[in-house]
Amino acid sequence: MHCYKLTIAYEGTHYSGWQVQPNASSVQQHIQEALAVILKTDKIGIIGSGRTDAGVHARAQIAHFQSEEQLNLHRILVSLNGLLPHDIRIMQVELASSNFHSQYSAIGKEYHYHLYLNRVMNPFQRLYSWHLLRKINVDLLKQASRLFIGTHDFTSFANEAHAGTAAHDPVRTLYRLDTIEVEGGLRLEFEGDGFLYKMVRNIVGTLVDVASNKKTLEEIDRIFAAKDRRLAGMAAPPQGLFLVRVDYPDDHLIYG
Amino acid sequence: MHCYKLTIAYEGTHYSGWQVQPNASSVQQHIQEALAVILKTDKIGIIGSGRTDAGVHARAQIAHFQSEEQLNLHRILVSLNGLLPHDIRIMQVELASSNFHSQYSAIGKEYHYHLYLNRVMNPFQRLYSWHLLRKINVDLLKQASRLFIGTHDFTSFANEAHAGTAAHDPVRTLYRLDTIEVEGGLRLEFEGDGFLYKMVRNIVGTLVDVASNKKTLEEIDRIFAAKDRRLAGMAAPPQGLFLVRVDYPDDHLIYG
Repeated sequence: MHCYKLTIAYEGTHYSGWQVQPNASSVQQHIQEALAVILKTDKIGIIGSGRTDAGVHARAQIAHFQSEEQLNLHRILVSLNGLLPHDIRIMQVELASSNFHSQYSAIGKEYHYHLYLNRVMNPFQRLYSWHLLRKINVDLLKQASRLFIGTHDFTSFANEAHAGTAAHDPVRTLYRLDTIEVEGGLRLEFEGDGFLYKMVRNIVGTLVDVASNKKTLEEIDRIFAAKDRRLAGMAAPPQGLFLVRVDYPDDHLIYG
Repeated sequence: MHCYKLTIAYEGTHYSGWQVQPNASSVQQHIQEALAVILKTDKIGIIGSGRTDAGVHARAQIAHFQSEEQLNLHRILVSLNGLLPHDIRIMQVELASSNFHSQYSAIGKEYHYHLYLNRVMNPFQRLYSWHLLRKINVDLLKQASRLFIGTHDFTSFANEAHAGTAAHDPVRTLYRLDTIEVEGGLRLEFEGDGFLYKMVRNIVGTLVDVASNKKTLEEIDRIFAAKDRRLAGMAAPPQGLFLVRVDYPDDHLIYG
């Protein structure tokens, strides 16, 4: 068996998300259908590093599939891109170790979330950021951010996974949460060993509540301690979120 | 009579261009229709600083209209944005001198053109750049750029204006043509006292021909001298082009 690693960029706007769902157009399904045409079999499924919801974007989602055939990496890249819609692009195809798994082998991820703060929305940002009409105190937002860095039980910031999904250990380590000032707004950069379902969007919702004086800094510790999703802020809308990197151990690839 | 100056950002993807045309959806028409609703008259036309073609974008197109009424600038901004599609945004409404004219008062313009050079297109750039699959020599492109700076008769780099449009003096001064390296490609920045129809896209097509060894540096002087549009390169595609600034004399606004 050979294991192939795909690096995929997509604009999430027109999809129901990464994961195959009945009666919906998902990124995973488009790639699987293209792969079925190329490999002349519909027996091969691809597995992603994690789901992204409808409207969420990816600069570098990772997926893998296994095949008994030894495939030409360049030919697979070109053929997939020839069949896929233009808002989904395969950026790289690599040969991975036979035990590589895009989800279970992952040791870290980076997400970015874009906030747009000007009164009038920039039309080029409308599908890629959350337009905040409330007044935001950026210093308060940065102070609140620091309270999330480190190892915590993030239960209060995670939505229930869908039915049928195994329960996860809710402890995660956030290595970095930086606030970068960009034209018209802010880019929040999250780097951690892993993220629970909707965790980034729930943290962003809570940070914005603090920065707009709807919650106090002191409440954040209490929300963590309560382990109750209902206490944290609303999830920030999907279109501001980008999956930008998934990390794996150094030896996960096989170089031909 | 009061003269109002509008600063407009739009994504050109879904429009037939700036200018009203029969049986087509133009940016100018959308704004005029919204203005007609707000001012309760369809007698008021808006005039832009220049046309942009289908697919071309604007970060700051300028237009003006005249009205006998003294209008509340903030109310006009909010009402227009409430009626316009989300890919057209009025960024600013200002009171201009009574003799202000968005086209004839303009003393300079800045355009940017985006080239994308990586093998696989970034899906977030597909509607905002020209994906070049040929190999490009960036040094050669920069050398060719320098030949366009200054005052020239740009006849060879201008398309015929549409029927019914008055002929223009074909001499223009290009103050600046900079090549900026950006993620995945290049941004060409053009600044000049004015631009003929399709001039930026025709220059970009010619620069790319030189940078990909389809034309020599020496040919450029001959193309200028011939004053013949057929000798220059093909127009670069519209989606890479952005109108980013229109300049006017310092005293063109009235501050209330």
